[in-house]
Amino acid sequence: MRKYRNAEIQEVTVQDKFLSPRMAANRQVTVPYSYKRCQETGRIDAFKLDWKEGMPNRPHIFWDSDVAKVLEGMAYVAAGKSDPELEKTADALIDLIVSAQQPDGYLNSYFSGIQPELRFKNLYTNHELYCAGHLIEAAVAYFQATGKRKLLDAMCRYADYIDSIFGPEENKLKGYCGHEEIELALVKLFRVTGNQRYLNLAKYFVDQRGQEPNYFLEENKRNKTGAYPERMIVFQAHKPVREQDKAEGHAVRAVYLYSAMADIAAETGDRSRLDACNKIWDNLTSKRMYVTGGIGSSRIEEVFTLDYHLPNDSAYAETCADIGLVMFASRMFNLTGDGKFMDVLERALYNGLLAGISLEGDKFFYANPLEVTGHFIEAGHVKAVRQPWFGCSCCPTNLCRFLPVMGSYLYSIGANELMINIYAAGEAEFNLGTGRVKLQVESSYPWDGDINIRLQEATTGKFTLGLRVPAWSPEITVKVNGQVSNNTTENGYVKISREWRKDDKIEIKLAMPVTALHCHPEVSYNSGRIALQRGPLVYCLESIDNKAPLGSIIIPEQQDFKLKAIDSITPGAIAITGSAFIENPEASADLYFSGIPAKAETTFTAIPYCLWQNRGPSEMAVWIRTV
Amino acid sequence: MRKYRNAEIQEVTVQDKFLSPRMAANRQVTVPYSYKRCQETGRIDAFKLDWKEGMPNRPHIFWDSDVAKVLEGMAYVAAGKSDPELEKTADALIDLIVSAQQPDGYLNSYFSGIQPELRFKNLYTNHELYCAGHLIEAAVAYFQATGKRKLLDAMCRYADYIDSIFGPEENKLKGYCGHEEIELALVKLFRVTGNQRYLNLAKYFVDQRGQEPNYFLEENKRNKTGAYPERMIVFQAHKPVREQDKAEGHAVRAVYLYSAMADIAAETGDRSRLDACNKIWDNLTSKRMYVTGGIGSSRIEEVFTLDYHLPNDSAYAETCADIGLVMFASRMFNLTGDGKFMDVLERALYNGLLAGISLEGDKFFYANPLEVTGHFIEAGHVKAVRQPWFGCSCCPTNLCRFLPVMGSYLYSIGANELMINIYAAGEAEFNLGTGRVKLQVESSYPWDGDINIRLQEATTGKFTLGLRVPAWSPEITVKVNGQVSNNTTENGYVKISREWRKDDKIEIKLAMPVTALHCHPEVSYNSGRIALQRGPLVYCLESIDNKAPLGSIIIPEQQDFKLKAIDSITPGAIAITGSAFIENPEASADLYFSGIPAKAETTFTAIPYCLWQNRGPSEMAVWIRTV
Repeated sequence: MRKYRNAEIQEVTVQDKFLSPRMAANRQVTVPYSYKRCQETGRIDAFKLDWKEGMPNRPHIFWDSDVAKVLEGMAYVAAGKSDPELEKTADALIDLIVSAQQPDGYLNSYFSGIQPELRFKNLYTNHELYCAGHLIEAAVAYFQATGKRKLLDAMCRYADYIDSIFGPEENKLKGYCGHEEIELALVKLFRVTGNQRYLNLAKYFVDQRGQEPNYFLEENKRNKTGAYPERMIVFQAHKPVREQDKAEGHAVRAVYLYSAMADIAAETGDRSRLDACNKIWDNLTSKRMYVTGGIGSSRIEEVFTLDYHLPNDSAYAETCADIGLVMFASRMFNLTGDGKFMDVLERALYNGLLAGISLEGDKFFYANPLEVTGHFIEAGHVKAVRQPWFGCSCCPTNLCRFLPVMGSYLYSIGANELMINIYAAGEAEFNLGTGRVKLQVESSYPWDGDINIRLQEATTGKFTLGLRVPAWSPEITVKVNGQVSNNTTENGYVKISREWRKDDKIEIKLAMPVTALHCHPEVSYNSGRIALQRGPLVYCLESIDNKAPLGSIIIPEQQDFKLKAIDSITPGAIAITGSAFIENPEASADLYFSGIPAKAETTFTAIPYCLWQNRGPSEMAVWIRTV
Repeated sequence: MRKYRNAEIQEVTVQDKFLSPRMAANRQVTVPYSYKRCQETGRIDAFKLDWKEGMPNRPHIFWDSDVAKVLEGMAYVAAGKSDPELEKTADALIDLIVSAQQPDGYLNSYFSGIQPELRFKNLYTNHELYCAGHLIEAAVAYFQATGKRKLLDAMCRYADYIDSIFGPEENKLKGYCGHEEIELALVKLFRVTGNQRYLNLAKYFVDQRGQEPNYFLEENKRNKTGAYPERMIVFQAHKPVREQDKAEGHAVRAVYLYSAMADIAAETGDRSRLDACNKIWDNLTSKRMYVTGGIGSSRIEEVFTLDYHLPNDSAYAETCADIGLVMFASRMFNLTGDGKFMDVLERALYNGLLAGISLEGDKFFYANPLEVTGHFIEAGHVKAVRQPWFGCSCCPTNLCRFLPVMGSYLYSIGANELMINIYAAGEAEFNLGTGRVKLQVESSYPWDGDINIRLQEATTGKFTLGLRVPAWSPEITVKVNGQVSNNTTENGYVKISREWRKDDKIEIKLAMPVTALHCHPEVSYNSGRIALQRGPLVYCLESIDNKAPLGSIIIPEQQDFKLKAIDSITPGAIAITGSAFIENPEASADLYFSGIPAKAETTFTAIPYCLWQNRGPSEMAVWIRTV
């Protein structure tokens, strides 16, 4: 049922100034650094199953997932670039992980090493199947990167064991994990092994969710897990998934579930889960998503809250949720070919997601607020200084595995169709139909909308090239070999079907004006405010460039915004500058006062949100007052 | 050290259209209704000490405080107006309460009836001394109202017992309660009994707080109460109180503590605690107080958060904290005679506090947000529909005892000085110096600034009459017997010293324009917004009168605001109306969009915040966009 697949990472070489440095920092810093942190904190040693009371670093129920995500990242790094040293480390880690596998196939460092009596006794909070899912994803990635089967085979044994425990048959558990993840992992395992059993198990876990009697509530009756009816929505277990029509509950879990629902629709052709996904998508993107692509407004339970509840300063917008939104959006695009999904994917990737990690690759945001006022930089509800690691370090390790695969989202490949989604500079090479297509993209995207594409090879004859027209661009012109192409835009793509040949040239000009975005008036936080966007990038003010408090700055909407190179933050980067007013330049000491506040003329400098706090802690605001 | 005392409730008869109906509703509805609720929920039966596992209504650790506050309310109602039926009920209740007193004087329904082994074992969370404090306040009130000593004597025995347990002596506990309250109660007990022991114990509890070694942390070592160092600030136990200079921690506890600190300064003449109170006051009122007088921004821990963190929609601003702020402000005024304290007292009383209860007296807000958007009326972080009662029902019962004493804040009485703080219509009669003063205030305050005062009796010869000049009024004229008085304003009061005689007339004209308040620019939530105030009343928009979403309404600051009678809400009430714009009158369905939003002319109607949601649930906003 899928129209497209993502590019494989081996098919794409990213050579731009935006994504490439992030991928390099991940390879050179984030992955080795995270591996080291996993060692230091005992996460890796936990697989030795020899922890005893009194030893340091007591293992934790979801440590396996951190190690798995780092290993998955290592696999993608190895896939992109031969690295024997890295592979040696990964092989040794895999040996250790597999050594922890029990004779029956079960593999979990915590529940084998520390509390074996609790195996599968508390699906509600214990994250066992979640950890299994991440180990499966790592195994698939490492097999695909290196051809080595050791972890894959172990994970098949584990999945077989899980399948023997869970399912509709009378003697099996009717449960599913409190934190979704295994569902989409099992689809990956099915795809790489062809074993239908894994797809069926994924489908079972997805469809069983929220059915009556509710498994978590039944489990609670047996062994007091703490589950209660009102909280089922946090786990997307408040009703069967095909009846769900709003983005609800814990945001990361939600988008992992929705990704699996889309995967199952793709593999089975059954539209029922896709229909639910479409309804959920509409709710999520039209009422519950920050302009940065961040999702999950509340730190309390890390959940979606209510329609139009998008507070800026207390925004949770977890980095992992951004990653999950990219995963969900990509699957929806591949199923439907509708560019609206790619617009959101790009928004999440180029803004909220990359804000989650420092340019150096060694500091992380768990939560990504859209506004940080003076007193909140180092305190308060959402700590607004990137941290080197977290007790619950899902975000750093999720970035380890996400950053190396960014290239795979740039292209989608269908039957005799090649879609260019995001015009990052680089090269790509695909088998298409009966031949090959190799192309080179020259651009300064996202800093500039001029894109030149050259076919370096094209042996497949006639095929359709899809060129995305981003929703943020008011105008696109496309020339093929110097001739203006008048193909119309369809679902957000200009599609050109022809006998493409070597050395064909495509010139794309995407208008990339500075746009002042307004927000739906029900989002009262943003009324009377604008957010500046240029291309896919949402901008923000930092107090390092502007007078604080940022709430006193007013940017007139109607003006000629200027662009300014800010190579000092990262080469190629561009700021937006312009004229502004500052209210109460000599801020009154009074908390409340009457009289029209004085206004003084000033200028402002806005930088891309994804680059904020790379020059030290600073006040920051995305939504700025306007007149 | 006190310059003034509050009026006694017997000295003041409130006969206005603003406070009187609230006092009548309290007498007729809130007090009997709350007593009934205390009966129905088992709070009263708990004093029988016969609850057994399996019976309904398991007693709770702070139930005694609810019963005590209702009883205190009954006492004030009885003091204001003879009510034999009410007194009979109160006497029976007192008999029951006293029957629960243990031979050693200890009196707590939970810790005598349910967990006697935990007596004073967990001061950190168990609220024992807090409950004792409320029982003491009730006892003092009932004695003062009726002359009956039964509960007072019992409470003296209890206080004696507490004094035998806590104190600096070697064999005594060095602790204090996790929830302040007993401190100010013991000062009241000292004042009514003259027994210095109670003042000393109050002083001990206040001064011991936050000393090293920290009692709560020591207690936690002994029996795992859950206390940990970072949380000490929630209980104002992070450092000794005389070193505290910011309003910190749980807001209700904080203002109860500060009230006790001021009381002890008053009784001992030692300025050290007052100096801390002044610093805390400055921080509280210049950086941490809502324009409604609400305090405590966060529902998480119900705490003060950080300077300028005053979010509108998630404002906690607990009703009890407003009551506590009035208590603190009143004590500070009586100590210093500085009108700035009375300005805050009036702001808290006339806005946030009275918003906490419906005009009918039977529905309550626990939290008092300054903005409620559509999706949050019946859901979300802060439930924005007044509730008939709460599991933790501190606010309704606190109102029971607060509303009957509002008259006592209208006047402050010093040595040959009578200060009129708030010009509510009514009569008052005081012993002053060697004679008596009886006066009548005619006004429509706070709906109008014309006030006529007539001395009905004045036998004390020369004395000083202080007439408050509220900070909100840009102009005041005072005539005495038709002659303009040119006395200057001093500390917010016009003071006229003369031989006052019977039938002297004072005419006061307070200018009461509609004022557009701005907020300090560090409060980013309010930048570009105004709050309308007239007299002491802060106004808000409700969607029942205005187009929603209220975030799309823009009120030009420079205009001739009009007044409109809204007797349908409550007789005498006045709305503010004027011209406005509405942005996006046909609200776009898009969450984010470019292009300057359309604006249409419209009008607005603002009602006093203290009257909101008396016509059913509605969107509401205090801070409105301006141009």
